[in-house]
Amino acid sequence: MTDTPTARLDAQIDFLKETDKLKSIDRATRLIGNGRFENSAEHSWHIMLHALVLADQAGPGVDIDRVLKMLLLHDIVEIDAGDAPIHGQVDHAAMAAKEEAAAQRLFGLLPADQAESFLTLWREFEAAETPDAQFAKAIDRFQSPVINLENGGGSWDDYNVTLAQMETRVGAPISRGAPGLWAWLQPKLAAFFARRTS
Amino acid sequence: MTDTPTARLDAQIDFLKETDKLKSIDRATRLIGNGRFENSAEHSWHIMLHALVLADQAGPGVDIDRVLKMLLLHDIVEIDAGDAPIHGQVDHAAMAAKEEAAAQRLFGLLPADQAESFLTLWREFEAAETPDAQFAKAIDRFQSPVINLENGGGSWDDYNVTLAQMETRVGAPISRGAPGLWAWLQPKLAAFFARRTS
Repeated sequence: MTDTPTARLDAQIDFLKETDKLKSIDRATRLIGNGRFENSAEHSWHIMLHALVLADQAGPGVDIDRVLKMLLLHDIVEIDAGDAPIHGQVDHAAMAAKEEAAAQRLFGLLPADQAESFLTLWREFEAAETPDAQFAKAIDRFQSPVINLENGGGSWDDYNVTLAQMETRVGAPISRGAPGLWAWLQPKLAAFFARRTS
Repeated sequence: MTDTPTARLDAQIDFLKETDKLKSIDRATRLIGNGRFENSAEHSWHIMLHALVLADQAGPGVDIDRVLKMLLLHDIVEIDAGDAPIHGQVDHAAMAAKEEAAAQRLFGLLPADQAESFLTLWREFEAAETPDAQFAKAIDRFQSPVINLENGGGSWDDYNVTLAQMETRVGAPISRGAPGLWAWLQPKLAAFFARRTS
């Protein structure tokens, strides 16, 4: 039981068991038509489905297979660092340090080659500089507004969000990675927030 | 608003909203150390992570990117057909017909090219004849026993499962698609069930 293939598999399965905890990390968004908060594991599944279905919204240099892997891994750090709601008050530098430590501990449970490759892919997502990461970020930002529109407000009410805040926090990253999705979403947001403030 | 790109995007987003319901489909397995049942959306995320981490357990012909897409889509039919617990009493022919109808309705919400390609991939998974589908099935069967061992029984207690049933229902598909995982799991199951019946 101490030969290398077994030790490798033991480490991989320890990591997989640890990541079960992502199912207990709640986000600010609720399910459609359901009072329950969405957790980060089911959210990760749903945005991967968004990325696959909306792949034709990605720019020409984007590799959807890499995007899916980024989205598969992107929220695992929340097991240690928690979810930072986009409309909440967050110390971004402190949160980034906490997430980096979480990534090192959690991916560090894996064999060294996988730990390194997962860390690299997660850091690429966080940096949002490559076309793949920018599309992944756009998709990650796109899902919650669609749900909130469907729920008639949702986390926008909990956080007193304005259209101007939506343009900055959501519009900017979606425009960068998937401009067609922002063109679809923006008029719906404008109409919703106009009704709400009138 | 009726030009083709917008109609395509509207259909895609209708599909994505409908699939939010997978987060409310409960499985027979519980989370590790938590009484709550696992839902099929978070399960799908977790087995995709298993497939990526355990990719070196796949045979030489397996394309992990296709496997990830299969696993991303594989449980969506449960929105209409429900989850059929592996250890429950199920009329397999009736369930297969129900799932095929579900696949046609749900994937049919998408533009025709995507509906066709998703249906084809889902049917390949269900048929479990290609190396990709056999690895995907093996991974899908592997996660619950790991969780049940961790929980000291879990759904095995709810369904009075025996080691012989595990060999047939779980051992056979795991051996076919990922023999190294069955070699890891089988002695742990044997020891667990021996303790339980002694």
